[in-house]
Amino acid sequence: MPVTPGPFAGRTVSDLALDLRAGRVTAAELARLALEAAARLGPALNAFVTVDAEGALEAARTADRELAEGADRGPLHGMPVGVKDLIMVAGLPATMGSRHFAGYVPDTDAACVTRLREAGAVIVGKTTTHEFAYGPTGDRSANGPSRNPWDPERMSGGSSGGSGAAVAAGIVPLALGTDTGGSVRIPAALCGVAGFKPAYGAIRADGVFPLSVTLDHVGVLAGRAEDCLLAYACLADERPAQDGGEVRTAWLDPAGLTPCDPRVAALARVAAGAPDVVELPEGVGARLRETYTVIQSCETAAVHAERLAGAPGLFDPEVLERLRVAAEVPGWRYVRAMEERRRLGGVVAELFDGGHDVLALPAVPLTAPRLQGREVVLDGGTVAVRAALLALTSPWNVLGLPALTVPAGLVDDLPAGLQLVCRPGSEHLLFQAAEKAGRPGPR
Amino acid sequence: MPVTPGPFAGRTVSDLALDLRAGRVTAAELARLALEAAARLGPALNAFVTVDAEGALEAARTADRELAEGADRGPLHGMPVGVKDLIMVAGLPATMGSRHFAGYVPDTDAACVTRLREAGAVIVGKTTTHEFAYGPTGDRSANGPSRNPWDPERMSGGSSGGSGAAVAAGIVPLALGTDTGGSVRIPAALCGVAGFKPAYGAIRADGVFPLSVTLDHVGVLAGRAEDCLLAYACLADERPAQDGGEVRTAWLDPAGLTPCDPRVAALARVAAGAPDVVELPEGVGARLRETYTVIQSCETAAVHAERLAGAPGLFDPEVLERLRVAAEVPGWRYVRAMEERRRLGGVVAELFDGGHDVLALPAVPLTAPRLQGREVVLDGGTVAVRAALLALTSPWNVLGLPALTVPAGLVDDLPAGLQLVCRPGSEHLLFQAAEKAGRPGPR
Repeated sequence: MPVTPGPFAGRTVSDLALDLRAGRVTAAELARLALEAAARLGPALNAFVTVDAEGALEAARTADRELAEGADRGPLHGMPVGVKDLIMVAGLPATMGSRHFAGYVPDTDAACVTRLREAGAVIVGKTTTHEFAYGPTGDRSANGPSRNPWDPERMSGGSSGGSGAAVAAGIVPLALGTDTGGSVRIPAALCGVAGFKPAYGAIRADGVFPLSVTLDHVGVLAGRAEDCLLAYACLADERPAQDGGEVRTAWLDPAGLTPCDPRVAALARVAAGAPDVVELPEGVGARLRETYTVIQSCETAAVHAERLAGAPGLFDPEVLERLRVAAEVPGWRYVRAMEERRRLGGVVAELFDGGHDVLALPAVPLTAPRLQGREVVLDGGTVAVRAALLALTSPWNVLGLPALTVPAGLVDDLPAGLQLVCRPGSEHLLFQAAEKAGRPGPR
Repeated sequence: MPVTPGPFAGRTVSDLALDLRAGRVTAAELARLALEAAARLGPALNAFVTVDAEGALEAARTADRELAEGADRGPLHGMPVGVKDLIMVAGLPATMGSRHFAGYVPDTDAACVTRLREAGAVIVGKTTTHEFAYGPTGDRSANGPSRNPWDPERMSGGSSGGSGAAVAAGIVPLALGTDTGGSVRIPAALCGVAGFKPAYGAIRADGVFPLSVTLDHVGVLAGRAEDCLLAYACLADERPAQDGGEVRTAWLDPAGLTPCDPRVAALARVAAGAPDVVELPEGVGARLRETYTVIQSCETAAVHAERLAGAPGLFDPEVLERLRVAAEVPGWRYVRAMEERRRLGGVVAELFDGGHDVLALPAVPLTAPRLQGREVVLDGGTVAVRAALLALTSPWNVLGLPALTVPAGLVDDLPAGLQLVCRPGSEHLLFQAAEKAGRPGPR
């Protein structure tokens, strides 16, 4: 990694929690380390929009006092966390990556932030998002593109690009993101960290600015899958099951969804360690893509109709152009897409019904593209970067299935990710499969 | 009534059931009476598209044999019934009122028809519908307009216009209809009979050609409210509650929804006999109308997209023009409308929360307009006929609430209807309120 990694690179939340309780470090020291790293790496990576030094130090001192008094809030107690700038933190600016919200400061925490605070976490600041989270490239934001720690001229991925960069660079051990078509998993994969998008609705989205209400998921990014699970258990209404048993993982051939860099596919396949192979039936990949596009277009245009009519010039030009196209999608296609979504759920259910708990595939079919790149050669053909980035992640938003990305290795010194997908209620098997995949990751 | 009413005018299903069991009449005789009346009144009213003499007589003979053997299927046993031509009856043509389905004969019964048969009912034939049920005027159908028995130059109302005319003229004692914005209640009101649209989903819509999937309801038309209840109990998955108690009915001022013929409003108000008055909050009427229009437009265009693209010339010109407009409604407006629908449900819930079980209002703000009339003067202003017909019924489709229409009297020799609305689960109170309103009706 060309940038000198921050203090949390290679550290797990469980390690840090042990250190805290053994008195080897204080929450205040952890917060200071995070703040210093954010200051040092900020210009190079543009991971943070807002850093809240005062608030973080105060929360950390409270965490230390509580621990000293024997009040232990669990694994996130005292842990520095970054929060995507689409998620409301009371008293901190929330720009949504847009000039439309310049100067906006919410006065209430999002539900997931309330959970973080209840778990004793220390909020370090707000991480850069693609404008209104409407893009997987992470390079169109009012405060500039977030950059990849493995090569700052390349995309961190989006839309939770700042969270991906901040965790990968070791500025924080954990960050919140949102994932509507892959916006947690894409930056996790491109930056070489773990990212978890739970089942639809499993983490409440109240206080999160919407992108596409039936596709939006709140998720987490961390160095290791097990840290995502710790955070998820704090953030979700229902605790994941504990008892594992044998996990049966099948490799889902990504060719049914997108062309793929064969080196990325090969790394993911090895990491998955799954002997069985399943395939999507002919045409299902195209149907999933169409369904995703239509649903997202209509729901996103519904969020922004007044801004689009009243102040179009405040949008980034690319975001504006996409919104204009989205606003033209006729309603009957949305109605059809919602029906198709139900049918597709049945098709994918059959893949699981074949005796598999987890499907494994690459997270993203390529490594991090250059910033502002919009076309890329992939497996011999030219493809649109946005479509390629979303191709393997968005199906699981359409279907609301839990999906986890873990590092699978490096291709030309850039990370590639393995993605694991399960049915709601089988999250424990998903994390068990990740442990089995078990590579130490690229750091 | 200018036409000489058929044999079932003024007869109730309970009366007929008693006669059958006392041996005063046979099911075969009832079927023959219905068939003769259909033949005699057919040309004048255009109530039926298809009459199934052979099938009806065979079913009636079976019903007689079963009764003779002591196998009694309940109140609909041996009862002649008309079925709207949008509802599949195996082996009978189903035109949906459209040239698109000329010659189409389904081979499976709709779920509600299966229920009718299980209850021993005798299907006499298929009743005229507005083309694809897409219109409350009942006067645009491949087999011509259905006509009002009270004045055949006037609308029967739609889209279940044939069912309304057939019951009002006494051709059958009972008929099935569908109701997406009022298509059971509007013809019931304009023809002076009772019509019940149950809660959304209470009668399964499998095998019913869709108009707008989240607004479509299967309903029943009969001479009296209590016959609607008997039929409903046979058709619904759950039986309505029995125990009544005191019903608290409030008059819902229709002025919040539409201009109204004051004579129609006065008749309905007297029939309701409700001392309390409630009003929709400012602006809610317009929001209900907009929500209905957007949802129906998008869902209807989704049903017909291929026909609209491939064979537009087979549609009635007015239906075609409306479909073209509907297909242009953007998806973001549908998304907004579905959100608004949830909010409006809360607004109307507050009217009930004020201690009322049933809301009473006119069914339709005017009496039957002339066939093909598209504008009418109402309370001093010119209004569009379609909008006026739907104004008081469509809100209860948007919200999925049970709604019943009963005759309230005559204005200039044309029927006016009282409408009663309740929350799902309070159907027994709705029918109790109707009994209390208890006028014998205009026949």
